[in-house]
Amino acid sequence: MATRTVSVSTVVSQLRSGAPQAHPAAPAYQALAEGLRRLVADGRILDGTRLPSERTLTAALGTSRTTVAAAYAVLRDRGYLVSRQGSGSVVTVPGGRSGGGPLGPGDTSLDLIDLSIAAPSAPPGMAEAFEEAVSELPRHLGGAGYSPFGLPELRELLAQRYATRGLETTPGQIMVTTGALAALSVVLRAMVGPGDRVLMESPTYPNALASVRDSGARTVGLPLDAAGLDPHALDVALRQSSATLAYLIPDFQNPTGTLVDESTRVQVAASLRRQRAVAVIDETPAELGIDVADHEMPRPLAAFDERAVTLGSASKTYWGGLRVGWLRAPERDVARLEQARLSLDLGVPVLEQLVLKRLLVKRDSVLAHRRSELRSSRDALTAALRRRLPDWRFTVPTGGLSLWCELPQPRSSALCDAVAPLGVRLAPGSSFGVEGGLESFVRIPYAVHGDVLTDAVDRIARAWGLVAEGPAAGTARGTLIA
Amino acid sequence: MATRTVSVSTVVSQLRSGAPQAHPAAPAYQALAEGLRRLVADGRILDGTRLPSERTLTAALGTSRTTVAAAYAVLRDRGYLVSRQGSGSVVTVPGGRSGGGPLGPGDTSLDLIDLSIAAPSAPPGMAEAFEEAVSELPRHLGGAGYSPFGLPELRELLAQRYATRGLETTPGQIMVTTGALAALSVVLRAMVGPGDRVLMESPTYPNALASVRDSGARTVGLPLDAAGLDPHALDVALRQSSATLAYLIPDFQNPTGTLVDESTRVQVAASLRRQRAVAVIDETPAELGIDVADHEMPRPLAAFDERAVTLGSASKTYWGGLRVGWLRAPERDVARLEQARLSLDLGVPVLEQLVLKRLLVKRDSVLAHRRSELRSSRDALTAALRRRLPDWRFTVPTGGLSLWCELPQPRSSALCDAVAPLGVRLAPGSSFGVEGGLESFVRIPYAVHGDVLTDAVDRIARAWGLVAEGPAAGTARGTLIA
Repeated sequence: MATRTVSVSTVVSQLRSGAPQAHPAAPAYQALAEGLRRLVADGRILDGTRLPSERTLTAALGTSRTTVAAAYAVLRDRGYLVSRQGSGSVVTVPGGRSGGGPLGPGDTSLDLIDLSIAAPSAPPGMAEAFEEAVSELPRHLGGAGYSPFGLPELRELLAQRYATRGLETTPGQIMVTTGALAALSVVLRAMVGPGDRVLMESPTYPNALASVRDSGARTVGLPLDAAGLDPHALDVALRQSSATLAYLIPDFQNPTGTLVDESTRVQVAASLRRQRAVAVIDETPAELGIDVADHEMPRPLAAFDERAVTLGSASKTYWGGLRVGWLRAPERDVARLEQARLSLDLGVPVLEQLVLKRLLVKRDSVLAHRRSELRSSRDALTAALRRRLPDWRFTVPTGGLSLWCELPQPRSSALCDAVAPLGVRLAPGSSFGVEGGLESFVRIPYAVHGDVLTDAVDRIARAWGLVAEGPAAGTARGTLIA
Repeated sequence: MATRTVSVSTVVSQLRSGAPQAHPAAPAYQALAEGLRRLVADGRILDGTRLPSERTLTAALGTSRTTVAAAYAVLRDRGYLVSRQGSGSVVTVPGGRSGGGPLGPGDTSLDLIDLSIAAPSAPPGMAEAFEEAVSELPRHLGGAGYSPFGLPELRELLAQRYATRGLETTPGQIMVTTGALAALSVVLRAMVGPGDRVLMESPTYPNALASVRDSGARTVGLPLDAAGLDPHALDVALRQSSATLAYLIPDFQNPTGTLVDESTRVQVAASLRRQRAVAVIDETPAELGIDVADHEMPRPLAAFDERAVTLGSASKTYWGGLRVGWLRAPERDVARLEQARLSLDLGVPVLEQLVLKRLLVKRDSVLAHRRSELRSSRDALTAALRRRLPDWRFTVPTGGLSLWCELPQPRSSALCDAVAPLGVRLAPGSSFGVEGGLESFVRIPYAVHGDVLTDAVDRIARAWGLVAEGPAAGTARGTLIA
């Protein structure tokens, strides 16, 4: 992720590495405004970034103060910049994803399509859930507002949801967190020490990978094949590595989308027991079956392995702007997890918990809409890929949020670099690899509308053409900024 | 903090250590119900705790299943218990702090006064701020909702607030977190390794202490005297310990309430520079001046030491049910703090940030109310203590949320044990000590109404009478449960 400050040297070098001005006759201030605007549109300067002061940029560019001031004024007028006394000039992306209007010569009117995050916008009914939750809030305002492990009624609903899925659970086994990643932080703090080994599927969820590494543990990769998790390979890897923890995503894995079937779960559980490894099961995508109905889903992995800790999240099922997740632990681990929690943060906002309560009650209707949207986006994406990039290979996932594509050549990072200036942000396969590699893969999430994906695939195909075979591949970034 | 599960052996031993039944002729089921109810009212079984199943408790008590079932039924009828298929029986505290109605023989109708948390209820205007924030939400629902370091407009407002306090700050220096403790977790992850030494005032905020310890760092205590932080002692401690970080609360310290004056800040900053230690300044209580107006406050410590990292929180200034905090870091530390953050959690809920935005805009009126309430509560507490416990010593703090009382005898833990059955939850002085000790002190927060505090001091005085001089001191717990 980029930071939200940008140094003057970065701005100057990015401006200079850009294409020459389309209209060399344009006034200098307009050319500068356009250069800066394009850096914003390309996602190279992010929303909320403070630009260098006019004086600093003037000095660094060796231009006149008037030119810089006029360029900033143009950007302000166009809604790309907010300047406030004492805080400098802060970039703003007008209208969010849909981008701003044309701006002078050389404008390409690119909209930024951010496919680096596999997370959907809020479903219908979200604003209503917030309003209802606010109406319930006064009941809580008379207290100090702390509920470090979660509101009892929410823990109860979450426990019921597990029971419905075939895993008997008491509210005391549930801890509400600020998300699945925060839940993983709690588990790692409670259960691993420096040098302990944690097995992770490869590819896996990059933030979980960072979290495990930053905990001081050592990661052990378990390569996934096209069918997903291989229980024999898991058994061997656990035995050889003596890993004490295994972080797994058995339900519509991120990024591959594979779903581990029930008979494999039985084998996985046996292997975990045999090798005395504790499974940490990330079920963030578990509710996102597209072709698999609720009643067709295998039972949660913890139903097969009572020692497993399960992580859940509202971010993908409902909305990422809600920051609520939870964990479900065996009774015997609850006390140490609670202790670890209290050294990380003091709990989840009351209102967020009330919102999730509402959403759990409305789950079926909210999810029906979400799944139907995902089906349509997924199908648009696969159709566009088959049309524009017929030599790319992928298995169509039956749920989840992303397609894991195998490229004919290991040029994923180059592709992501090349498509950025075309206004598509993508994470290369290597980001998902436990031990690097995976340069032959790229994840394309389908959490946005099908039309946007069709547009994105068009740009990806153009970038791929240059990266895969074009003579300019070596200088793709410099060339493509034009 | 207690866990939210309770073992059958704990329940049985707590029942047996309680007072004999006031009415020995009462039916067994009623006696059991009353025993359990009192454990709840005393705060020994917390809201949301799952009780043992009827069968388990029957076996452990050696009574009949009918008795246990009837006792649970009474508790359900009285609103102390919620039983649901598959989830067992979960304790609920009826009406929250105000307690439930009388329940059969032996009922003492005690209200629980929780003084273990120094945090106020929500101020007037909070519900309105939530409503306004919800009306602003739709602007965000079309996106994925992630803003891992905070919404630009909130970071801008927080930066402005620092500038108003005399510390120039850019929005890029601000990271929004789920609270000051979560901000501390980020700082520790980025800045300390196993075995590094972190200097902390003693007494200090217990959750920060736990957080530093769980990070693998070693704590070094700096004893505070009645006047607060002694810069010479700080200098010596930094030099002798080679601490790389110093966690300090210079503004209305928790728990002592002392405010470090501007000339001391100059000395502290010089010492930190000289000893190359990075200050982590927790400003959670900084806005809670009671006798000190905004314009009389010393400038933030980071204004004297540009390397300092500052933590802030909405929990104490506004409401603990909002879980929003932030940190302010020097530009050069921003990137590594952002990286550390992304391995802990993915950001703060959008709505919470919109609420805090509203509160920052209304700050002056919200705070005027908060401060006037705190003044009145503080004065009621000090008056009650002078009346009932004239040999206790304290310095009246000019701001913050708590009074740090010195007892005539080092019996703080015994006092807290003794006052619990009288319905007051208090944290002993030793909880705040970096290297234990502090048994001669107790923290009494004044974040609740003055009448409640007068009542609490009455109970504390009764408990102190038994603990300090009564012949039953050695068996205070057993005796006082009556």
